[in-house]
Amino acid sequence: MTTGPGRPRLTSQRRPGRTTPEEILDAAGELFTTKGFAATSTREIADMVGIRQASLYHHFANKEEILVALLEETVSPALATARLLATVDAPAVVRLHALATYDVTQLTGTRWNLGALYLLPELRTERFAPFRAQRMRLRSHYQHYAEQALIEITGGDTEVVPGLTDLPFRIVESAIATRADVESGAVPVPESADAAALLADACLRALGWATPLDGIRARSRVLLAEMAGGTPRDLRPPRSDL
Amino acid sequence: MTTGPGRPRLTSQRRPGRTTPEEILDAAGELFTTKGFAATSTREIADMVGIRQASLYHHFANKEEILVALLEETVSPALATARLLATVDAPAVVRLHALATYDVTQLTGTRWNLGALYLLPELRTERFAPFRAQRMRLRSHYQHYAEQALIEITGGDTEVVPGLTDLPFRIVESAIATRADVESGAVPVPESADAAALLADACLRALGWATPLDGIRARSRVLLAEMAGGTPRDLRPPRSDL
Repeated sequence: MTTGPGRPRLTSQRRPGRTTPEEILDAAGELFTTKGFAATSTREIADMVGIRQASLYHHFANKEEILVALLEETVSPALATARLLATVDAPAVVRLHALATYDVTQLTGTRWNLGALYLLPELRTERFAPFRAQRMRLRSHYQHYAEQALIEITGGDTEVVPGLTDLPFRIVESAIATRADVESGAVPVPESADAAALLADACLRALGWATPLDGIRARSRVLLAEMAGGTPRDLRPPRSDL
Repeated sequence: MTTGPGRPRLTSQRRPGRTTPEEILDAAGELFTTKGFAATSTREIADMVGIRQASLYHHFANKEEILVALLEETVSPALATARLLATVDAPAVVRLHALATYDVTQLTGTRWNLGALYLLPELRTERFAPFRAQRMRLRSHYQHYAEQALIEITGGDTEVVPGLTDLPFRIVESAIATRADVESGAVPVPESADAAALLADACLRALGWATPLDGIRARSRVLLAEMAGGTPRDLRPPRSDL
C-alpha cells in the first residue's frame, strides 16, 4: 500500500479517502466539528489517521492549512456549479433553484458538517481571507440570480429592497444549523426526503414567487441531472473559469 | 463603588454592566466571539474586567457557567415574547411576524454576536442540555405559529410539507451569520434600516404568503409596541409561565 511521498504509514488505513491528504482531511473534519478547531492538535489528527506527525506536515504546513482545505471543499463545488449555470439558457428562477438545491445537497451530504466552522473567530484572520473572498463570490452569484429572478417574478416594476436579494444565500446556509441540530439530537431527522428542494423553494418564495413551484422544481432537477452527466458542450465552462 | 459580594475590584470599572456579573458576561462575550471559547481562560476574562480570578469564581463556578448564562440571554427574551404572544388575540401570521421581528432585533442588537456560539461543539455536552432544550422550546413556538399561519394562508387545504414549518425559525437565526459577515467586513453594513422586518416578511413568504405585507408589518409593529409598554392586563402572561 502506498501513502504518497510521506513516510510509510504505521498501520493499515483507518479513514476513508483515496490518498493520505484525503484521510487527513477526513480525520480533521471529524475533530474540528466534534471537538473544536482550537482544541485539536495536528498530533491528534495524525494519530487518528495512523501516521506520524512529521508525515502530516509533509502534506500540510500546519493546522490552519488543513482548515483552509476543508473550508474550500464546502464552497468550491457550488461555485463551479454557479459558473456552469451562468452558461445555461434557463430563467433565473430555475437557475437559482438549481444552485440552491445543489448547494444544500453538498452542505448536508458531506461526512462532517464543515459549514459549522464558518463562524470560527479564527476565520477572521488574514490566512482565511482567500476563503472568505471565495464564499463571498458564491454569495454574489446568489445575489445576481436573485436580482434577475426578482425581475422575472415582479415584472421589474417593484423596487429592490436592500437585503432582499441576500435571502436565498442565507436560506441555503441555514441547512448548516439544521444539520447541527439533527446531529446533536436536538431535532429529529427530517421526514422530508427532499430537504434541498424545500429550501430551494423557500429561496424563490422569499423573493415573492406566489404560485406553485412544481414546474420550477422539475426544470431545476433536469438541469442538475444534465450538468451532473457532464453532457452538452455548451454546459461546460471554460477551464480557466473553474 | 460596590462590586457585590466578591473581593474589592483592583481598578475602576472597565466594562459596561451594572454589576460585576454583568461586566464578566460582557468581557466573556467579547472574548468568546472574537478569540473563541476554547482559547479563552477565566484569567483573561477577569483581567479584562479588572478583577481577581478568585472574584470571578465567586460569581461563576467555571467558564462553562459563563457560557450558559450568555447563551440563555440569546433565547430567553424571545421565549418570553413567544409566551406573551400566545395570550394575544391576533392572527397567527401577525404573531409570527412579531415574534420574528422581536427575535432578530434581539439577536442583532446585543453587544456581541452570541448566536455565533450555537455551533460550538462544547454545546453538545450534558451541561448545555438545559440550554439546548430552551432553544428547542423557542423553535416549537415558531413551529406552532407557522402551522397556524399556514392554515390561515392556505385555508387549511394544503398538506403540511415536513420541514416547511421549520423555515421561520431558521430564517430568523440566519441573522447570526449575516451579522458575523458584516462584523468580519465580508459584507457591507446593510442599507435597510429594517433588517428585522425584512426577515420577518421572509418567514411568511416562505410559508406561501403571496400578497403585500404592509398590513401585517403595521399590525406586528403595534403588537410589539403594546407589549413593550407593559400595558394591557390580558397581555401579561401568568408569572409561572415566564
